[in-house]
Amino acid sequence: MVNRSSLANAIRALSMDAVQQANSGHPGAPMGMADIAVALWHDNLRHNPANPEWPNRDRFVLSNGHGSMLIYSLLHLSGYDVSIDDLKNFRQLHSKTPGHPEYGYTAGVETTTGPLGQGIANAVGMALAEKLLAAEFNRDGFPVVDHHTYVFLGDGCLMEGISHEVCSLAGTLNLNKLVVFYDDNGISIDGHVEGWFTDDTPKRFESYGWNVIPAVDGHNADAVLAAIASAKASDKPTIICCKTVIGKGSPNKQGTHDSHGAPLGKDEITATRAAIGWEHAPFEIPADIYAEWSAKEKGAAQEGEWNNLFAAYAAAHPELAAEFKRRVAGELPADFSAYAAEQLKLIDEKAETIATRKASQNAIQALTAKLPELLGGSADLAGSNLTNWKGCQSVKVDQSGNYLHYGVREFGMAAMMNGITLYGGYRPFGGTFLMFSEYARNALRMASLMKINPIFVFTHDSIGLGEDGPTHQPVEQTATLRLIPNHDVWRPADTAESFVAWQVAVEHTNTPTSLVFSRQNLAYLKKDAEQLANIRKGGYVISKEAGELKAVLIATGSEVELAMKAQAALAAEGVHVRVVSMPSTYMFDRQDADYKNSVLPKGTPRVAVEAGIADYWYKYVGLEGAVVGMTTFGESAPAGELFKQFGFTVENVVNTVKGVLTAA
Amino acid sequence: MVNRSSLANAIRALSMDAVQQANSGHPGAPMGMADIAVALWHDNLRHNPANPEWPNRDRFVLSNGHGSMLIYSLLHLSGYDVSIDDLKNFRQLHSKTPGHPEYGYTAGVETTTGPLGQGIANAVGMALAEKLLAAEFNRDGFPVVDHHTYVFLGDGCLMEGISHEVCSLAGTLNLNKLVVFYDDNGISIDGHVEGWFTDDTPKRFESYGWNVIPAVDGHNADAVLAAIASAKASDKPTIICCKTVIGKGSPNKQGTHDSHGAPLGKDEITATRAAIGWEHAPFEIPADIYAEWSAKEKGAAQEGEWNNLFAAYAAAHPELAAEFKRRVAGELPADFSAYAAEQLKLIDEKAETIATRKASQNAIQALTAKLPELLGGSADLAGSNLTNWKGCQSVKVDQSGNYLHYGVREFGMAAMMNGITLYGGYRPFGGTFLMFSEYARNALRMASLMKINPIFVFTHDSIGLGEDGPTHQPVEQTATLRLIPNHDVWRPADTAESFVAWQVAVEHTNTPTSLVFSRQNLAYLKKDAEQLANIRKGGYVISKEAGELKAVLIATGSEVELAMKAQAALAAEGVHVRVVSMPSTYMFDRQDADYKNSVLPKGTPRVAVEAGIADYWYKYVGLEGAVVGMTTFGESAPAGELFKQFGFTVENVVNTVKGVLTAA
Repeated sequence: MVNRSSLANAIRALSMDAVQQANSGHPGAPMGMADIAVALWHDNLRHNPANPEWPNRDRFVLSNGHGSMLIYSLLHLSGYDVSIDDLKNFRQLHSKTPGHPEYGYTAGVETTTGPLGQGIANAVGMALAEKLLAAEFNRDGFPVVDHHTYVFLGDGCLMEGISHEVCSLAGTLNLNKLVVFYDDNGISIDGHVEGWFTDDTPKRFESYGWNVIPAVDGHNADAVLAAIASAKASDKPTIICCKTVIGKGSPNKQGTHDSHGAPLGKDEITATRAAIGWEHAPFEIPADIYAEWSAKEKGAAQEGEWNNLFAAYAAAHPELAAEFKRRVAGELPADFSAYAAEQLKLIDEKAETIATRKASQNAIQALTAKLPELLGGSADLAGSNLTNWKGCQSVKVDQSGNYLHYGVREFGMAAMMNGITLYGGYRPFGGTFLMFSEYARNALRMASLMKINPIFVFTHDSIGLGEDGPTHQPVEQTATLRLIPNHDVWRPADTAESFVAWQVAVEHTNTPTSLVFSRQNLAYLKKDAEQLANIRKGGYVISKEAGELKAVLIATGSEVELAMKAQAALAAEGVHVRVVSMPSTYMFDRQDADYKNSVLPKGTPRVAVEAGIADYWYKYVGLEGAVVGMTTFGESAPAGELFKQFGFTVENVVNTVKGVLTAA
Repeated sequence: MVNRSSLANAIRALSMDAVQQANSGHPGAPMGMADIAVALWHDNLRHNPANPEWPNRDRFVLSNGHGSMLIYSLLHLSGYDVSIDDLKNFRQLHSKTPGHPEYGYTAGVETTTGPLGQGIANAVGMALAEKLLAAEFNRDGFPVVDHHTYVFLGDGCLMEGISHEVCSLAGTLNLNKLVVFYDDNGISIDGHVEGWFTDDTPKRFESYGWNVIPAVDGHNADAVLAAIASAKASDKPTIICCKTVIGKGSPNKQGTHDSHGAPLGKDEITATRAAIGWEHAPFEIPADIYAEWSAKEKGAAQEGEWNNLFAAYAAAHPELAAEFKRRVAGELPADFSAYAAEQLKLIDEKAETIATRKASQNAIQALTAKLPELLGGSADLAGSNLTNWKGCQSVKVDQSGNYLHYGVREFGMAAMMNGITLYGGYRPFGGTFLMFSEYARNALRMASLMKINPIFVFTHDSIGLGEDGPTHQPVEQTATLRLIPNHDVWRPADTAESFVAWQVAVEHTNTPTSLVFSRQNLAYLKKDAEQLANIRKGGYVISKEAGELKAVLIATGSEVELAMKAQAALAAEGVHVRVVSMPSTYMFDRQDADYKNSVLPKGTPRVAVEAGIADYWYKYVGLEGAVVGMTTFGESAPAGELFKQFGFTVENVVNTVKGVLTAA
């Protein structure tokens, strides 16, 4: 048999050579973790390179994503659709091997990593999803969901706050099939970490209730293999703390931050080849090493066994098996559209005046009845966000249920939701105050970048929040969310728009959604059938002008009713304006030019009204239009007083329209 | 003497009555922490209510800011300028007692809190500033800087990731004058925390190297007093874990989340009065309790002693004392403007083609020579952000120096910088990649809200980052930063603009600044004296049209040179355009209408060019203009290829201008 060090050296050689060829990248982590990677991928990982979508595969997350050549090497060597040419194209335009591992670009990459701490959070989400799906679908004798989630991470991930949030929760939820390898190499970009990172990490993870395996020699295969065996046997999540040498093998750069984030250089690569006894040219791997690394045969056998198990399961539990397939494929039930249309009709008939967060809860109630894949939750604001519903079951240590109490962990929640979504079988939604979308912001972006479809619920959406004051009153948040590419943001005006927002969010396959809801009650706005149907276009005429069109008022959420009152006041003076409700600029921007022009006729002056930062709306009103919006932070006071204070009054909207008409 | 429980009950009564009167707020934490508050404020805190600005006062931070009535009660009772009428106006418009404590609104409130976890981070910054200022200014026999920083926090702060970041660093830096009281009441908004928060918090803080005082009865004055004494004697930061009952005193709601975030209700308040033996009407405090609570006399004496000490210090070290006063007052040296002007002249003469992050480092080198209050740092990217300089001294466990290795802790860094700024004596600046401004985002907002002036340095500002790919390439970040009210964002085009950006940032007194710099080299753009002087206006004509003005190109940063090349190409075809460099829209927006019109003449078509999200620029180009910008995420590839791929070419800019002219 090819010896283990040759298997590890294949990783080292590919990594240092690819980084050298790209003239950028991070050789240190792949070289330092190569021996651990052999113990995990060669000896333990259950996966099938021929089918990266096998539902019961082990999940692997490289949370220290800058070490991307490690996973690319592993995917290539074990037989995934990552060729040697792909490795030669490391970090080149449109290659399968971008600078950081990107979900959707490379077979076998389970999630996009690089922004530190989020990979481990994704993995906690995956490990939880595995538990929940197992609880929901496994039956006696049929463990159709039964595998591990493995994570590599480094000092950077452990310094990031999000690692605290999710590892704490993983301990509380006792996710014992989560196994984390800590690459304890003592080096970060600024140098030796002892000046800025002196945590007793084993003790820290003990405080979370984890199984901690300290002081493992990360270059000793037996020690790592024993640790993995012990981790798999544990009834708690496990962290294996591996002492490693960064850039291991490089005689002059190993153990220093010189090997962290830059090519080793030609001379040092030559010296490294000599030091590790690797006599092959760049990107040349001997056939016997390829053969030993290949996981194709073993993987096919493993999946084959599972396919047999699943066939027997399907025979015994046909409906459950069909539902499992639907859920894992991420498909909506065939009659979903009809169901949603019926619900919307009921809502329109009811015409309730309630807060849109309450309307959201009603939508959740209706949708969860049809979609058991919906997995709710909140960052300790269940009763405020109203993301819970009648009949929901809290996920506790028993690892079953459909409502997660994430605790006060907004960023952790959002990144876990990404992991749950990537895992499959569930459509997570999670709530917090709109303000604290900021704590979670980069996870929302990662969802957009990965083209996945979690649903973020953000309530208390403006100064309408009232007394809690400017620390909690969103001003610029809705606008900044709208600026994330591939991110659909809805700010509905009433119960019907709230339901449609939910429906569109659920229907999105490649786009995450942020749903923005009010704390305060909003009146129902009467709609005809065409208007109801147009909501999903993101912007529509909610109230037509009663005479010659002079201007268009564009409003969202709580300000639509205000715009309609201003319309009435202007009409009384003979000035006829139209009101456009624009709950989703994302959807509106994607309509055809004819539709857009039918809503916002070219050349007609426009005024936007939104209790959010004004700047965003110039995209729609232009230099000649005007915006009734916020230009400062809010204040602590009852909501009604604040709307007056900041100019959200009929009088001010009317005067703003007149000002625009005078200037035009 | 008035007994302790009466002192505590005064807090309880004021808190429940004010929340009831406002009909919103959080009585639970003030009532639960009242006994701890007596032990700290009545027996330990060194402060002078008559002078909340006394530099050597103890700092107190209510990190669980929703319990604002606790600090308002304490400020009122101990004699600050917070009247009983102010308490009656709790949460009303323009009152001194907003829903969450806000810096600048209320004498004695050291920082704005409410967004959980940031208060403790501010406090870690304050405790560090105390150490650094002491190291810099104290002399034998003259401990002019020598006090404690105290923090109250709850489960929420401890669940938030940022608490991990800053408490870990506080342990590494051994900030032994930081004393944290953990309000361990077992309740968060969703209910009893055991379903989502089961950390062994004492063990967690031991893992950070803290002095941990576990299992203190938070309602036992002797126990709390003993813990404080032990904390003050420790050579490590201390956490005192206090078991408390939320809403203590309320017979039917204490110990439940019903007392957390809503008024107790009239009946329960009556029952509470009876249960705690408080016979006074709402907002009535007996004179003997006022007398016992008052810290006026003791505080005046304490400050008087210090004034004597400082006078002796000033006699022995007159220059040091003068410098201390300047630093604490936050004043720039009298000759700063002249110095800066001279530096700018040198930079203009040198006309270097370098990355603006390197230009930033040069600016730092020049400014630190003049301003010893500049306290640099980076979240583990010193060599990439180039926030270090020749001669800077890393802050280590010795607690002196002027450069902080914050570790991979972006949010913690930013919130600590806010705390350092609030403390006084230092002007912190800290760096990370622009992408990871998102991790820190809410702390940037808090700086803007508090009207303080830290300087955030964000490098690697666009797809120009290249191979690291879309996870690290900012697209929407610069635009979203510009949407924060009271936040100045600079994206300079060359060395001169980079220096002016730094100068303006340093000169801001009430506004934080985000400085956005390139990874890649940018050419120096020749300027005359007027142009050099106009940089600080945020937008100026960097290249005038050579004939009849047809259009204006507005560009920032790396795209200004591109705009100038497009200008030349258009001129060759007889189409004359002007190029406006707009490094700071914040500053430009604040110029008078005449100046703005002289730069951007009304009615002239405009095209904006920025390698960032396009949407933002419609504010300046309107519906008839156009934007050469990003509408998607980037890719992993060498920077040059990416600029081509995404349309940042002379050809595309030229065609875009022509398109606008054709449509006009």
